[in-house]
Amino acid sequence: MTRTAFFISDGTGITAETLGRSLLSQFENIEFNQITKPYIDTLEKAHALVELIESTAERDGVQPIVIDTIVDQTVRNIVAKANAFQIDIFSTFLAPLEDELETHSTYTVGRTHAIGQDDVYMHRIEAVNFALDNDDGARTYQYEEADIILVGVSRCGKTPTSLYLALQFGIRAANYPLTDDDLDDNGSLSLPASLMKHRHKLFGLTIDIRRLTAIRTERRPDSRYCSMDQCMREVEQAEALYRRHGIPFIDTTRFSIEEISTRMMNETGLQRRFSPR
Amino acid sequence: MTRTAFFISDGTGITAETLGRSLLSQFENIEFNQITKPYIDTLEKAHALVELIESTAERDGVQPIVIDTIVDQTVRNIVAKANAFQIDIFSTFLAPLEDELETHSTYTVGRTHAIGQDDVYMHRIEAVNFALDNDDGARTYQYEEADIILVGVSRCGKTPTSLYLALQFGIRAANYPLTDDDLDDNGSLSLPASLMKHRHKLFGLTIDIRRLTAIRTERRPDSRYCSMDQCMREVEQAEALYRRHGIPFIDTTRFSIEEISTRMMNETGLQRRFSPR
Repeated sequence: MTRTAFFISDGTGITAETLGRSLLSQFENIEFNQITKPYIDTLEKAHALVELIESTAERDGVQPIVIDTIVDQTVRNIVAKANAFQIDIFSTFLAPLEDELETHSTYTVGRTHAIGQDDVYMHRIEAVNFALDNDDGARTYQYEEADIILVGVSRCGKTPTSLYLALQFGIRAANYPLTDDDLDDNGSLSLPASLMKHRHKLFGLTIDIRRLTAIRTERRPDSRYCSMDQCMREVEQAEALYRRHGIPFIDTTRFSIEEISTRMMNETGLQRRFSPR
Repeated sequence: MTRTAFFISDGTGITAETLGRSLLSQFENIEFNQITKPYIDTLEKAHALVELIESTAERDGVQPIVIDTIVDQTVRNIVAKANAFQIDIFSTFLAPLEDELETHSTYTVGRTHAIGQDDVYMHRIEAVNFALDNDDGARTYQYEEADIILVGVSRCGKTPTSLYLALQFGIRAANYPLTDDDLDDNGSLSLPASLMKHRHKLFGLTIDIRRLTAIRTERRPDSRYCSMDQCMREVEQAEALYRRHGIPFIDTTRFSIEEISTRMMNETGLQRRFSPR
């Protein structure tokens, strides 16, 4: 049976959605139709949403699940009347927190991602610019300023990871593609000079050979570049290089970009450049 | 008084941190020292963490706040013994959800960002590549394939927003910088031909003139480009252009990248390309 779940907020809905997904993912044998409804911040929108929830209940033959972080009392009261199984995140946790902190909460809409975060914004922009400027080994002279330098074969996930690190943590991540020139099979396994200097900043990425073949085939079909043989040779040599030089590495096949990035932060002890409050 | 808050998980900690930040941000008059501890997945790590919590309690003179999504029962039992005000997210919500869904939850570590999300990964990679290939008006012939085309003056936030849309929603966002050539002050306010064809996909960004001046000064000090006059002229003409052609637009000064992106999705009715379960 498919159940419908609504993640509702008068802000971005990021908190309701993150928690909702996390909770529902614990129920593997149920299929969920997950719908995020951000910016439910007027009575009109609230009433329209209630109608949607009601008609969904009728269609599904069972009440939907509603997980919300609505702050506005009036809007919340309307949504609360819908025929649904409701999890009200703020009501559940704010009351006990108020007791513990011996103060009232301010219940401000979208306070988490609020305005006036000039520092956060600047750190993010600078980190994104850094990642773009130092993508694909384009500039190695800026490695001095890098927080971390991702290395790996072409198409193993360096660019999305470096951008995620920039946007999420303000981390300046450069990335350097290991090519045939770096990965000779003469067994010397030496690091390019530009990397050797910054060995302590290196973090390796590796990837399943089948996955890599598929990704490269999409990009450049019927090439030597995308052949299983070539992919295998590159990946094996990259991993040998990591082991030879004690470079920590992670398999991007097994993890999401969120996980890869969080694991990197954790293993290297890197501190985020801003803390969104 | 400063209170310390720990966001703890045996996974990435993203859920605990997102919810924790959101809850604590409702208490404006209290300063929080917020610490995320992901991957607490062994007894050793759990015991070390308890010691950290205890010593923090001693230093602060008040018990820390612990918000966790630990799934492993043994690890959770250890952390639960720490001298802290504890909010156990999964315990609070999973039991009532199990009743409602009439089934047991699986309590799998990090199930939210789990492996086997090949489709998600591919959509993200493709969207990131699209954003990079179509950054800064580099290629306009791919606008056919774009989900959305961000327009705005140089340094108003187009690139980070397009990358966030790609990583978070798998949306293919191109971006086109409005330059002096597009923004003539002859009053004609016509759109460049490459944009005119895709007018329904356009979304404008605007920015506070002071903020723009500051950002541009950082990038290219003492230039005409960064002068207050030039910034004002460009921003005013860009906004006039949006109004003239009925292009929706948003002020990036007032919102975080998360908010800008979520609002765009909401206003345009764009659907995310993947749904992380």
